[in-house]
Amino acid sequence: MNPIANGSVTTPAGFTATGVSCNIKQSGNPDLAVILSSTPATIAAAFTINKIVAAPVVLGRELIARQSTAQAILVNSGNANACTGQQGIVDATAMADYAAAALDIAATDVLVSSTGLIGEPLPMDKVLAGIDAAVAGLTDDGGEAAATAIMTTDTVPKSIAVSFDLDGIRISIGGTAKGAGMIAPHMVTAAPHATMLAYLTTDADVEASFLRTCLGRAVQVSFNAITIDGDMSTNDTVAILANGLAGNPGIVDGSVAADQFQAAVTHICTELAKMIVRDGEGATRFVELTVTGAANENEARQCAGAIANSALCKTAWFGGDPNWGRILATAGRAGVQINPSGVMLRFGDLTVLDGGTPQPQNRAALAAAVDKPEIDIVLDLGVGDAKATVWTCDLTYDYIKINAEYHT
Amino acid sequence: MNPIANGSVTTPAGFTATGVSCNIKQSGNPDLAVILSSTPATIAAAFTINKIVAAPVVLGRELIARQSTAQAILVNSGNANACTGQQGIVDATAMADYAAAALDIAATDVLVSSTGLIGEPLPMDKVLAGIDAAVAGLTDDGGEAAATAIMTTDTVPKSIAVSFDLDGIRISIGGTAKGAGMIAPHMVTAAPHATMLAYLTTDADVEASFLRTCLGRAVQVSFNAITIDGDMSTNDTVAILANGLAGNPGIVDGSVAADQFQAAVTHICTELAKMIVRDGEGATRFVELTVTGAANENEARQCAGAIANSALCKTAWFGGDPNWGRILATAGRAGVQINPSGVMLRFGDLTVLDGGTPQPQNRAALAAAVDKPEIDIVLDLGVGDAKATVWTCDLTYDYIKINAEYHT
Repeated sequence: MNPIANGSVTTPAGFTATGVSCNIKQSGNPDLAVILSSTPATIAAAFTINKIVAAPVVLGRELIARQSTAQAILVNSGNANACTGQQGIVDATAMADYAAAALDIAATDVLVSSTGLIGEPLPMDKVLAGIDAAVAGLTDDGGEAAATAIMTTDTVPKSIAVSFDLDGIRISIGGTAKGAGMIAPHMVTAAPHATMLAYLTTDADVEASFLRTCLGRAVQVSFNAITIDGDMSTNDTVAILANGLAGNPGIVDGSVAADQFQAAVTHICTELAKMIVRDGEGATRFVELTVTGAANENEARQCAGAIANSALCKTAWFGGDPNWGRILATAGRAGVQINPSGVMLRFGDLTVLDGGTPQPQNRAALAAAVDKPEIDIVLDLGVGDAKATVWTCDLTYDYIKINAEYHT
Repeated sequence: MNPIANGSVTTPAGFTATGVSCNIKQSGNPDLAVILSSTPATIAAAFTINKIVAAPVVLGRELIARQSTAQAILVNSGNANACTGQQGIVDATAMADYAAAALDIAATDVLVSSTGLIGEPLPMDKVLAGIDAAVAGLTDDGGEAAATAIMTTDTVPKSIAVSFDLDGIRISIGGTAKGAGMIAPHMVTAAPHATMLAYLTTDADVEASFLRTCLGRAVQVSFNAITIDGDMSTNDTVAILANGLAGNPGIVDGSVAADQFQAAVTHICTELAKMIVRDGEGATRFVELTVTGAANENEARQCAGAIANSALCKTAWFGGDPNWGRILATAGRAGVQINPSGVMLRFGDLTVLDGGTPQPQNRAALAAAVDKPEIDIVLDLGVGDAKATVWTCDLTYDYIKINAEYHT
């Protein structure tokens, strides 16, 4: 698998994209993106499991239930089109219809997403003008522009692409993602779902049911394993379009090619997920937290998620403070089995607690293991053999600033 | 029920108390308290349901399981004696033994609590010297000193007392509490437990099993209905001592006197719980959040707890921002039944969403309903008839400051 410098969703053959400003955002920053495949592509998608979902998520679920191909992805930022009642459905439908007409493709073949403020009606005049501008501006190097236009509180656009050979044929997969706040996995389910917006493109030919399986597996260990603030969105969507222009034999589950393709998709999703955490609202430190010794994988994920979302743990990390008792206190309330006299906690290579008993500590070394940009923590619950890893960030003054001042 | 000005745990007959400084805290602030009944008193207590518990909680549970009377409460602040292994049990036992000898009471009759930093051994020389000083300083107006000595990040001591007549006999109940961070209820259980330290005293004669029932009922609707940061402590303890010196006929469950006594204990616990929230770490606003229309009471509590702990909701409140979509998004991920097209949301008297549809809003009136010291929010899930109320606070720069700088 080869990383592609400056790779994006327009790296794979047959994909064009763009991003434009249509003033949904008061800032005037880009706020509307289109990603287009030149031919109908196999599609798979995962959506938030929030029970309050935005209108485009309702339509997206219907699209995926109805058909296995699509051709375009249309995204606006600055307004989530969530909690907008029936008008929201009307508006999201109009977005798809208008874009399809402008792109001269079937209206059913446009997946729509929205992200931004909840509870405000979409300014449809601006949105439709933006669609016209975006369709006119589609280019085969427009991936970065699309990545920029889907941003909300993100500080950097997030793109990636890789290539690899399948049966002697060069395959590319590209991806982009956005999300910096209202980011949380649902740690206890095995059902695939997403926690932000991410779009993958590939020129591989992939059989539809395997594409869904593949995306689900990848989402579970990537986007579902990150949290910034524990708040799951109403709009989370991950989608992949596979247009088959590479000309490989269609990839089916259980094949060697499927394993290679799965590895690449999982890699793309994991890298995008980590990019989201590193760009978390106000984040100054990236934390990799692994819970081992759990009774089962769900409990490992649940415990890791509780710690990753704990305000006290996250503020200690911001302070560069070991204050590891907060991690233990959180594990104890996480609703999982834990053996208090068997628990082990490690920061990097430094064991601070073993068999439930504090270990002699070199304070300078311990402080050094925590007071750095990337913190590595392992907690063993002393119960079983299951484990899980989550990625998260610290809770800082800037998180408060961003979210107290992001006014309606 | 009459409030008593400057009332405290020493208001009821037969109780003395004090607080001293013994330099467990580097600040030199008071850090050791004793509350004593002149005669053995009936005791009831509730403890954290965290699976990682501090040594004094282990001993406290044993005390309550073993006996129905006690005579003294000994509390140190500045060190939680949690995650301290076997040495922690030895130290907590030594505290009880030493205090009992100094007080000339049975060693089994001392309930010990600790609060403060987790994972550090107690400085026992300082603690034992502090016990000597405290025992020498016990006075019948020492309630406020005790309330001060149990504080950690609290900014004000918290005391209250009421009196009322039972069968013509004047009864008093006093109480004190501490807690400003690591405060969270366990919203889905009906089992009584506490989320901070609180001690009640009364001169009423109360039958032991009713005292336990009464405290459990009171805790469930007071301390278990508050959250500051969603982080449940390893040390939470609520205890009540009833010494019977008022000379009333012993109160038994099901009697008129029991109803009166229950109302008073619930009142004391509720007022102390609200004091804790108002003094929450960094808090600038107090929020009363009621979830109605839930499928059952557990779901109402679970949903209210999720919103009360949401970083995005709490930062919006800090910003004085209606941003009510965050409340809906949180309700949708709370794991409870919700009817998206039947949901209603109200700030004070202003309905912002009804039948799942945003209502025409007077922005100035809406902003005014949120940008004030006490915010009143009602969310109806549109499913059933159950409801629950929680009290919480906003998430602010000062919460970050307090918890990132509270160094080990």
